[in-house]
Amino acid sequence: MEKIKLGIVGLGRLGRKHAENIAFRIPNAELTAVCSIIEAEVEDAVNAWGIPYGYTDFNEMLKNDALDGIAIASSSTEHCKQIEAALDAGFHVFSEKPLGVNLEECKIAEKAVERHPDKVFFLGFMRRYDESYAYAKKKIEAGDIGKPFLIRCYGLDPVKAVQGAIAFAEKSGGLFLDMAIHDIDLARWYLGSEAKSIYAIGGCYAYPEFEKYNDADNGAALMQFENGTMAMLYAGRTCAHGYHIETEIVGTEGSLRIGTTPQKNLVTLFNENGAIKESVGGFLERFEQAYINEVQAFVDCIVENRKPDVTVYDGTKSTKIAYAAKESFENNKLVVLE
Amino acid sequence: MEKIKLGIVGLGRLGRKHAENIAFRIPNAELTAVCSIIEAEVEDAVNAWGIPYGYTDFNEMLKNDALDGIAIASSSTEHCKQIEAALDAGFHVFSEKPLGVNLEECKIAEKAVERHPDKVFFLGFMRRYDESYAYAKKKIEAGDIGKPFLIRCYGLDPVKAVQGAIAFAEKSGGLFLDMAIHDIDLARWYLGSEAKSIYAIGGCYAYPEFEKYNDADNGAALMQFENGTMAMLYAGRTCAHGYHIETEIVGTEGSLRIGTTPQKNLVTLFNENGAIKESVGGFLERFEQAYINEVQAFVDCIVENRKPDVTVYDGTKSTKIAYAAKESFENNKLVVLE
Amino acid sequence: MEKIKLGIVGLGRLGRKHAENIAFRIPNAELTAVCSIIEAEVEDAVNAWGIPYGYTDFNEMLKNDALDGIAIASSSTEHCKQIEAALDAGFHVFSEKPLGVNLEECKIAEKAVERHPDKVFFLGFMRRYDESYAYAKKKIEAGDIGKPFLIRCYGLDPVKAVQGAIAFAEKSGGLFLDMAIHDIDLARWYLGSEAKSIYAIGGCYAYPEFEKYNDADNGAALMQFENGTMAMLYAGRTCAHGYHIETEIVGTEGSLRIGTTPQKNLVTLFNENGAIKESVGGFLERFEQAYINEVQAFVDCIVENRKPDVTVYDGTKSTKIAYAAKESFENNKLVVLE
Amino acid sequence: MEKIKLGIVGLGRLGRKHAENIAFRIPNAELTAVCSIIEAEVEDAVNAWGIPYGYTDFNEMLKNDALDGIAIASSSTEHCKQIEAALDAGFHVFSEKPLGVNLEECKIAEKAVERHPDKVFFLGFMRRYDESYAYAKKKIEAGDIGKPFLIRCYGLDPVKAVQGAIAFAEKSGGLFLDMAIHDIDLARWYLGSEAKSIYAIGGCYAYPEFEKYNDADNGAALMQFENGTMAMLYAGRTCAHGYHIETEIVGTEGSLRIGTTPQKNLVTLFNENGAIKESVGGFLERFEQAYINEVQAFVDCIVENRKPDVTVYDGTKSTKIAYAAKESFENNKLVVLE
Repeated sequence: MEKIKLGIVGLGRLGRKHAENIAFRIPNAELTAVCSIIEAEVEDAVNAWGIPYGYTDFNEMLKNDALDGIAIASSSTEHCKQIEAALDAGFHVFSEKPLGVNLEECKIAEKAVERHPDKVFFLGFMRRYDESYAYAKKKIEAGDIGKPFLIRCYGLDPVKAVQGAIAFAEKSGGLFLDMAIHDIDLARWYLGSEAKSIYAIGGCYAYPEFEKYNDADNGAALMQFENGTMAMLYAGRTCAHGYHIETEIVGTEGSLRIGTTPQKNLVTLFNENGAIKESVGGFLERFEQAYINEVQAFVDCIVENRKPDVTVYDGTKSTKIAYAAKESFENNKLVVLE
Repeated sequence: MEKIKLGIVGLGRLGRKHAENIAFRIPNAELTAVCSIIEAEVEDAVNAWGIPYGYTDFNEMLKNDALDGIAIASSSTEHCKQIEAALDAGFHVFSEKPLGVNLEECKIAEKAVERHPDKVFFLGFMRRYDESYAYAKKKIEAGDIGKPFLIRCYGLDPVKAVQGAIAFAEKSGGLFLDMAIHDIDLARWYLGSEAKSIYAIGGCYAYPEFEKYNDADNGAALMQFENGTMAMLYAGRTCAHGYHIETEIVGTEGSLRIGTTPQKNLVTLFNENGAIKESVGGFLERFEQAYINEVQAFVDCIVENRKPDVTVYDGTKSTKIAYAAKESFENNKLVVLE
Repeated sequence: MEKIKLGIVGLGRLGRKHAENIAFRIPNAELTAVCSIIEAEVEDAVNAWGIPYGYTDFNEMLKNDALDGIAIASSSTEHCKQIEAALDAGFHVFSEKPLGVNLEECKIAEKAVERHPDKVFFLGFMRRYDESYAYAKKKIEAGDIGKPFLIRCYGLDPVKAVQGAIAFAEKSGGLFLDMAIHDIDLARWYLGSEAKSIYAIGGCYAYPEFEKYNDADNGAALMQFENGTMAMLYAGRTCAHGYHIETEIVGTEGSLRIGTTPQKNLVTLFNENGAIKESVGGFLERFEQAYINEVQAFVDCIVENRKPDVTVYDGTKSTKIAYAAKESFENNKLVVLE
Repeated sequence: MEKIKLGIVGLGRLGRKHAENIAFRIPNAELTAVCSIIEAEVEDAVNAWGIPYGYTDFNEMLKNDALDGIAIASSSTEHCKQIEAALDAGFHVFSEKPLGVNLEECKIAEKAVERHPDKVFFLGFMRRYDESYAYAKKKIEAGDIGKPFLIRCYGLDPVKAVQGAIAFAEKSGGLFLDMAIHDIDLARWYLGSEAKSIYAIGGCYAYPEFEKYNDADNGAALMQFENGTMAMLYAGRTCAHGYHIETEIVGTEGSLRIGTTPQKNLVTLFNENGAIKESVGGFLERFEQAYINEVQAFVDCIVENRKPDVTVYDGTKSTKIAYAAKESFENNKLVVLE
């Protein structure tokens, strides 16, 4: 079996999970190099997993001829320039979302991708690779709910992660950019159209700490798409029961709900409180397999010389809409997208 | 609208509920008389609801020509003799379950019913009149699950009622007679056959107080029917989450479950424990409408000169099976019914 | 027991149900008079239920001294003038929603109510009297979800009723007035604040017949309230699975969902399609008990000389918001309420 | 990272899945050899995955010094002698369930394990390694349901697999040996006690083809354990909705249900039939991760020089109980275990 040799940059929580998946759970991939500006993370990975190459300088990793592709799981602000550098250095590229933190950056990434039509560029909207989301997509394509015309998306982080979000608030780009970007991608994907207008509201209902960043702890948006369809988004950082990612697609002949109860597993506990389904705790738990599946899909694209369904433009468009949501929220007005 | 005039005997918790239902929720019935050996209960009902006649002596009530029928909600030990007396006095009769506390008594009731073929005798297996149970019966009759061959019945009382059960243990007849009788009726009803054999086990897992009555706080039984079908019964007195009545009927082409989650209402609470459906608290809450429906059915039988689907023999047969379960449990042996 | 004597106007589907409930399911009420412009409906009710008085002229009914109160279940366009006439004639008044079809009418009703401070005026927002909705309210008041800051309301009619909706489209006032009015009331009730702004969108996704009325078959709205809280509304006329009324209230410490699965009853069917919960078919089925409870509450207010929680102003405010939604949808703009 | 080198025997449906898992999903394992009496299966695996060694003779594989352990996924009739041979040849051994098809064989395996106390012997009761089953075990050990006293186990194969079961009926050992063995293991595991008595019934309700093998298409059993606790088992081959593995453990302070709705994924479909959760199709789908986890646990035991929780005696005991169930069913009598 041909094995694709990958290097990864970024060894934070998600980066380390990606590294582990590449090393051990993607049959036709090898983790050949790891890179982080934090030397201890590099040493740790190299030693623990026997990785041949370790770097603290991203550009040094790009000089490694042994590699076929680069996986980017660094800070969001690094994504676009690393995408450009890796593509220009001749590598296939997988990048975590978001594509970039502003539209100018996204355009740089788009141009780099266009310069290298022979390379695979893969953007990590992992939900599309989650078993349930993919199943819903198939159902829709099979016509099981008729023509979809409304999507409702919940993206709620557990309240126990809120202090981290407060600490990160200055850099996060705000609730809609930070949290709703996956839902925006799902809305475009399932509705098959581009956003036409968006109206967003929100507030600091539990954590006034977000106010000084002109941000919200919970917010909602209503969008209309060019084909007339609708999206309702709810993003929040204070979910008491855990990590709640729920999506509903309503069509003319039926509807689909994904993750209505964010169940941890198949256990129901009955006690004096009633019948209880415990919740999943966070994104690594909920999307454990999806994170494997997406990198597998990236590697398969390389092996089979195919392009992924998600494109660099999907990244730009979602970012654009998230910015429109931010603008709408900050100015309390309806924003029409060009 | 012709109104059927009823007298009721027994004004305990369930008796009072029946009285109230007859007085106010059965359009074509009137509560004309109430009877209880506890004078205060009689006075209370007469005054609160303006009931014309109040009695502390059941035989006195039977002399009242104004009445069309008698509803019996007294102690189980009184049922059979009151059934006989009321029928012989020329009244239609509704009796709470169980028909009788032993088979000899049941035979007395059977004979009384046979002596008065022109009278309606109605046995209060109210579950048959619950919307969900009745719906399941219709589904089965429509062939939606093919041929039913297995029934699983849970009858669990809330643990908060256990002290009452302990206090009553001496008179209750034991777990299977006291609690499984409804499930035995359901098994016969849904499977359409008579019990052939039963094996029952149980124990005092939480409340050793039941041991001195040779009784169990929780028990299970496995039955086979004459047509080869099966029943699994679980009766318990220590349910932590509330009153849990669950029934499953498995057929050759599908299955039905009734009450899998014993939900209190349509509310789900999400909090730090997860997604919670609170449980219904007791039989008056779970079967509130069924208690109305069954008395309505009794009254409609009188008005329309029909006989109910439940017969006096259903009462005898269920009692017989419950005794067989008790015998099996007490002697740890398989009991074959004649 | 003192019995309140009521006359009802309107004997259509809901009117007849109210009449039946008053006649048979409200212990301390009597249905003393019925009124409809359709003579056959009057005759039918009088004969079937033995109602003393029947009218085809509403003003004639108001001359009947035997009556204590009037229940109004006529066409929406009649509500306000009948409310005024009945109050001025000295009766307590129960009126079905909506209060009026425009704000001028609502003001007339408000003035009439203000002129008769000794009379009970009760507006039929029956959902507040549904067991599950009332339970959720209690939970919120008990602080179980912290401070509520978001409500999501679904009000979906079954697609099998869509032809009736098309036939009625000219008079209905449009999707938001016709369908979202209950949800608007719930939003105000649960969030405890008044609407500040609303943005509504929609379309004719399945039934272009609504286009000529400038109406939508499905629509959504996003609202902000004076206290900063949010509401997401989705109203639709094409629900494939039945009548779907779902409400979620999200608070700072938890959330509540009511009716997430619009289950018909407690039965789950397992067959080759999977595990299936069938849906409730329509409003009379879903809110059967709530329709009884609200009239019971009206009657109890009369008996106990109390005022109901729902006021005439709740009716005006909900209508005002529904009009704002309509305006927003028709002009695709954010509407700020004064 | 040290990698354990494994050889596998048996490349049927489950064997091939194990092989694939060892090759690609167990980071610290390598699939070094494959063996099957069907040469094409060997060639296929060797070529597709680049496995160094391929055998059609099990004894030849045992001569391979490069191997650390052997995984046995051959026909049930081969298990015990292959276990013995592999242990005697100096290998760690993983064996699929059942340990053996009769008690004599099981004893041979027990002796072999006892002869090699330094070797890891791992029996593939994979459910114990399923996330939900393991979670339930932890909950119980944490005291969340008090003292467990009743377990209910459903093991239902999809009806679409019934023709295969009929073809295999002669060799399968019958419903209880073939299907209930996992549930018997779970009962012992969760209840922490040994079986004392068992009563089993069943029938050919849909497929009379099983009759000539003195077998049943559906059967049920009731067991009592030495500590007085109870188990209700239901095994079936005709499940209309798919593969239904459900387990409930009832304790003195609560209960746990695993897999009540055998949902395929997190999608709910709403259409004209209602709210539908589709079912999982078969054991490879339901226990996909558990099959990985158990082999991972086997490899970790080797690496860490530990013994697994499941022992060879667990295999013997479950087989013994399954035989008692078979005996009870065939003779319609209560069987007391020694």
